[in-house]
Amino acid sequence: MVKKVKLDDIAKAAGVSIATASRALADSPVVNDDTKRRIWELARVQGYNMRGLPVNSRWSAKATISIIVPKPQGREGWLLDPFFQELLGGIGEAARSLQCDYLVSHADPQNYDDLSRLMDGTRSEGIIFLGQSFLHERLNRLVGHPMKFIVWGGELKGQEYTSVGSDNIRGGRKATAHLARLGRRRIAFFGDTNAPEISQRFEGYKTALDQAGLAFDPSLVFPAHFEIESAANSMHALIRRGTEFDAAVCSSDLIAIGVIRALRKHGKTVPGDVAVVGYDDIQLARYIEPPLTTIGQDLPLAGRLMVMKLLNAETPNDMQTERLPTELIQRESCGA
Amino acid sequence: MVKKVKLDDIAKAAGVSIATASRALADSPVVNDDTKRRIWELARVQGYNMRGLPVNSRWSAKATISIIVPKPQGREGWLLDPFFQELLGGIGEAARSLQCDYLVSHADPQNYDDLSRLMDGTRSEGIIFLGQSFLHERLNRLVGHPMKFIVWGGELKGQEYTSVGSDNIRGGRKATAHLARLGRRRIAFFGDTNAPEISQRFEGYKTALDQAGLAFDPSLVFPAHFEIESAANSMHALIRRGTEFDAAVCSSDLIAIGVIRALRKHGKTVPGDVAVVGYDDIQLARYIEPPLTTIGQDLPLAGRLMVMKLLNAETPNDMQTERLPTELIQRESCGA
Repeated sequence: MVKKVKLDDIAKAAGVSIATASRALADSPVVNDDTKRRIWELARVQGYNMRGLPVNSRWSAKATISIIVPKPQGREGWLLDPFFQELLGGIGEAARSLQCDYLVSHADPQNYDDLSRLMDGTRSEGIIFLGQSFLHERLNRLVGHPMKFIVWGGELKGQEYTSVGSDNIRGGRKATAHLARLGRRRIAFFGDTNAPEISQRFEGYKTALDQAGLAFDPSLVFPAHFEIESAANSMHALIRRGTEFDAAVCSSDLIAIGVIRALRKHGKTVPGDVAVVGYDDIQLARYIEPPLTTIGQDLPLAGRLMVMKLLNAETPNDMQTERLPTELIQRESCGA
Repeated sequence: MVKKVKLDDIAKAAGVSIATASRALADSPVVNDDTKRRIWELARVQGYNMRGLPVNSRWSAKATISIIVPKPQGREGWLLDPFFQELLGGIGEAARSLQCDYLVSHADPQNYDDLSRLMDGTRSEGIIFLGQSFLHERLNRLVGHPMKFIVWGGELKGQEYTSVGSDNIRGGRKATAHLARLGRRRIAFFGDTNAPEISQRFEGYKTALDQAGLAFDPSLVFPAHFEIESAANSMHALIRRGTEFDAAVCSSDLIAIGVIRALRKHGKTVPGDVAVVGYDDIQLARYIEPPLTTIGQDLPLAGRLMVMKLLNAETPNDMQTERLPTELIQRESCGA
């Protein structure tokens, strides 16, 4: 809270609102240069320590944002996952071009108090939570906290906080409808339907089946976590069980890679025997064999939106939730 | 500079050295618990704001490290480059497992004063410079600064600072020797030989040619920056010029991807007409067509080493430079 008290002091001394003082320190273009200089001088004199102070505007950051990476359930080492790396890369690139630093925290907040203290303790312009994980209810309780925050993830029922994520329901529907249009009739779903975003993709899958006049068959739903091996194991189980299927909707590209690997091990062809659609369009997707048809999420755009929303919002309530459109990217894993 | 004054105040009030105060605040195991508690209490009372303070040790980070990403010459948007993403991912994963946060700064220090102020202004346990870029001389001048720092890159002539990077000379030699062993005689080199690490790979290339009894031919050296397009353009120029060649040593996997793409456009086969070796072993390397033979750098290991060195060193002089071994990973882009 040291930051807030001091910011208040500076604002009072300068005769401006806290919001204006904050924006001046962040070198916002909406504050005029005279005011900025006055506030910077006061901040300097009063010893307000902020990396963004324009000691030398050629290199100094204008602001710092915090990124909190909650631990996904049952996963270690997920920062080596290319999806996370590309999402972080998108945020990093946005931060760089907006002259903003970012602090990545591996804090593992377990309850509301942890979260709240985490937010009190930061000196950032705002916080990005990289994933809702199982924090949804706790994030809802943080609404009203003076610190701006934004969450990467799907928009959930009863959500009060701001999120940026892809339109998972439509994404799942597009993937499934594409397979149905190609004449596939036994379409399996691979993913952990308990995870918030995946449950939405699963909902889209069921809607598309319904619209295509295909019956939903629970025996075609297979849990798979975001790892190639986990997906390959699910696929082995499906094949060993003798279940017939001619297509797979995979809730991530990594899962699709695992599924394709397992299919080939069992002598099945893609797309001949089984057509496969991924989700994400990570860079790998275009290079695997066969090149993967997938639902594209524009991660650089998502990163840029999150950073810009945090930097531009005057208050936490200023920010709008975004459900980013997804795109069906047709390559070769579904045939023509 | 505020940090030092305050840390000094805390150290004086506690009757300990600045180093001990700093380690206590970072929750270092070398400081006993009584001293830590006393220093934490003083820090709290004096308003020393540091995210690492053990408000709740279950989630609080033990330390923060800073990562400075100098802008590579002539490049925008390099944070979307998979090599950078994997290197940052390796550091992130190491930081996570060591309960450490990291601050990524896109500061663009132009001279020694900028660098020095940047280091004075940080509240981190230490700094990682992601690349030497053109900062070598200035980094040498920072030796002796009380802030610990470490540089990702090759060990250069006259280097006084600590670096972690792959053994680029041997890496370049291995790639070239492999092609010579396979009977290739006109081996081209693709890369910007002015960049510190690439100049070392180039040195290894020339040594290997010499050892194989092949004459060095400057007309086979092509500048290519770390981008697929740039590499493809270099390759087009080589082909248009009518230069004959049967192999390519590429100074990164992305360059190799560009080279392969251009070769195919001109109706040449890989490895039939031209054998290609990359460098880095990013995840893409095993998925492209044909799967890429490359010189592997272990980026998760590199990340872990850099973070551990910074956290464990008591003083900047405690750290050793590492030239990590490289590995020739044989896939299909060179044939059998």
